[in-house]
Amino acid sequence: MSDPSPVRRPRPVPVEGMPAAVSVYEVGPRDGLQAESDVIPTAVKVALCSRLYAAGVRALEVTSFVPPSWIPQLADAREVVASVDVPDGARGVALVPNRRGLDDALSAGVREVAAVVSATDSFARANLNTDRAGSIARATEVVAEARAAGIPVRGYVSMSFGDPWEGAVDTAAVVDAASALSASGCRTLALGDTIGVATAGHVERMIDAVAAAGISRSALALHLHDTYGQALANVYAGLRNGVVEFDSSVGGLGRCPYAPGATGNLATEDLVWMLEGLGIRTGVDLVALARTSAWLSRIRGRPYASRVAAALDASPIPDREETPA
Amino acid sequence: MSDPSPVRRPRPVPVEGMPAAVSVYEVGPRDGLQAESDVIPTAVKVALCSRLYAAGVRALEVTSFVPPSWIPQLADAREVVASVDVPDGARGVALVPNRRGLDDALSAGVREVAAVVSATDSFARANLNTDRAGSIARATEVVAEARAAGIPVRGYVSMSFGDPWEGAVDTAAVVDAASALSASGCRTLALGDTIGVATAGHVERMIDAVAAAGISRSALALHLHDTYGQALANVYAGLRNGVVEFDSSVGGLGRCPYAPGATGNLATEDLVWMLEGLGIRTGVDLVALARTSAWLSRIRGRPYASRVAAALDASPIPDREETPA
Repeated sequence: MSDPSPVRRPRPVPVEGMPAAVSVYEVGPRDGLQAESDVIPTAVKVALCSRLYAAGVRALEVTSFVPPSWIPQLADAREVVASVDVPDGARGVALVPNRRGLDDALSAGVREVAAVVSATDSFARANLNTDRAGSIARATEVVAEARAAGIPVRGYVSMSFGDPWEGAVDTAAVVDAASALSASGCRTLALGDTIGVATAGHVERMIDAVAAAGISRSALALHLHDTYGQALANVYAGLRNGVVEFDSSVGGLGRCPYAPGATGNLATEDLVWMLEGLGIRTGVDLVALARTSAWLSRIRGRPYASRVAAALDASPIPDREETPA
Repeated sequence: MSDPSPVRRPRPVPVEGMPAAVSVYEVGPRDGLQAESDVIPTAVKVALCSRLYAAGVRALEVTSFVPPSWIPQLADAREVVASVDVPDGARGVALVPNRRGLDDALSAGVREVAAVVSATDSFARANLNTDRAGSIARATEVVAEARAAGIPVRGYVSMSFGDPWEGAVDTAAVVDAASALSASGCRTLALGDTIGVATAGHVERMIDAVAAAGISRSALALHLHDTYGQALANVYAGLRNGVVEFDSSVGGLGRCPYAPGATGNLATEDLVWMLEGLGIRTGVDLVALARTSAWLSRIRGRPYASRVAAALDASPIPDREETPA
């Protein structure tokens, strides 16, 4: 009898009514790294982006054009953008918090940007130096300018499901913020569970509320954190309700700044495992992704926050490119 | 502005058609501990069971009456059963692999037992010293004898969704095994994803297949491992398809014996968090459960495998009972 071995691929069993393909929107280089205290060399960031594209990722948030004083980790945004080749047909997105960030991104050659609003006053004050209404006004101005420059914009509504200062978040406030971004011309609208407190029923109800306001379900994305382990159940709820884009971070890179020691973004490997199991195409190669995750884990000297990566590591996948570029 | 703090409770948002209450079947003291290499003192096991009942758990698998040579960790089954007070209205279950185990359990005063069959020949050979058909014959004999003694029986079908030797598992083999257990008189039938490879569509299809064979959905339980991070999405699929009992392990206690370093059973805290978020009653107090998990983590000197426990630990919950009995 041979030795037992960890399974390397899920068995595809589709569910009627689910999409044939979805978009995996990788946020590790931006949302993951911005929460890291150890500064990662620019060359490693560039190699990470290149590996992710090579693994089949077709939507990648490469960096953020924020003032270096806000997030020193991302002070090399311009160099990263200059060095990362975005493959034909793929998206290379930069987050821009304001017009200054947009101008910097445009002059660096970025071809898609992401704008952020907060569904709560508290998060807007703590992270965006304004209030909820101010964050909407600022973001819609950015969207208008980007659209005028012919650049598509992704809109984030942060704290859509809960806030570490305020607790419960008003659904109407989320719908209002999402509607403002949509009206200003955002192509995609990502509902952000920034602190990972959403559960599946909450996700279903929020999608219905946003759709009832006239925003197409096919324009929605879910940006989920796995702080309380709920992210994949929430993806499943999203898939059942028409969402076709999901944010995740390779290796579960990142943390929750409001809960030290807790998990950060949903891990891309865990997401892709589920989607493959549902017979849904992503274009992402799970083995190439796991190799990237293992490579990054060795560089950071930290274990995986991805359960798939940890399980696959039980029978390591050969990797001939150990050294970062 | 006050400091942000991790959220301690999800916001309840029910989903239409889901049950008002479900059973959380705690397997930490049995399935969790049997995978641990460090031997846990009997007094700690007894204190663990008492804490779990005090936290509101109403279905608890206390131990297993296996030959000590198979699983030395559970050699104290008789002492544990003698020392654990099962509250009125609660279940205190012991797993029994064969008639000898059943006789020992009955003489120890156990009032509910669990029998196991394997859906695959390989797992039956490796763990039960027989083949698939032999495991069914042995289990149905145990069920008949227990029923004759007036004892309810829970039946497990191990490896229902994948096998580390054989890969994919035939759905017909699972249905056949479940039907045999059901016909012999099992009250509950737990479909076991022993290695955690199931995804949500697979779970939905398996439940439908078993129900089509005439087994009531309300008699089904899902025994899920979180090896690949899929367990809660699979619970959600189960809830949508009529399952009302879910197995989990406090603090994610346990491991996957076929994937060293990987996660073991679904963590009870993560399950209860989701169920509370769906407005589904469990009777389990999340804070008392998290305290139990923190207490056990300190004794074992190992971090939590539960994401909820890790997040709540960011703002520790006072615990006046630090010392095990």
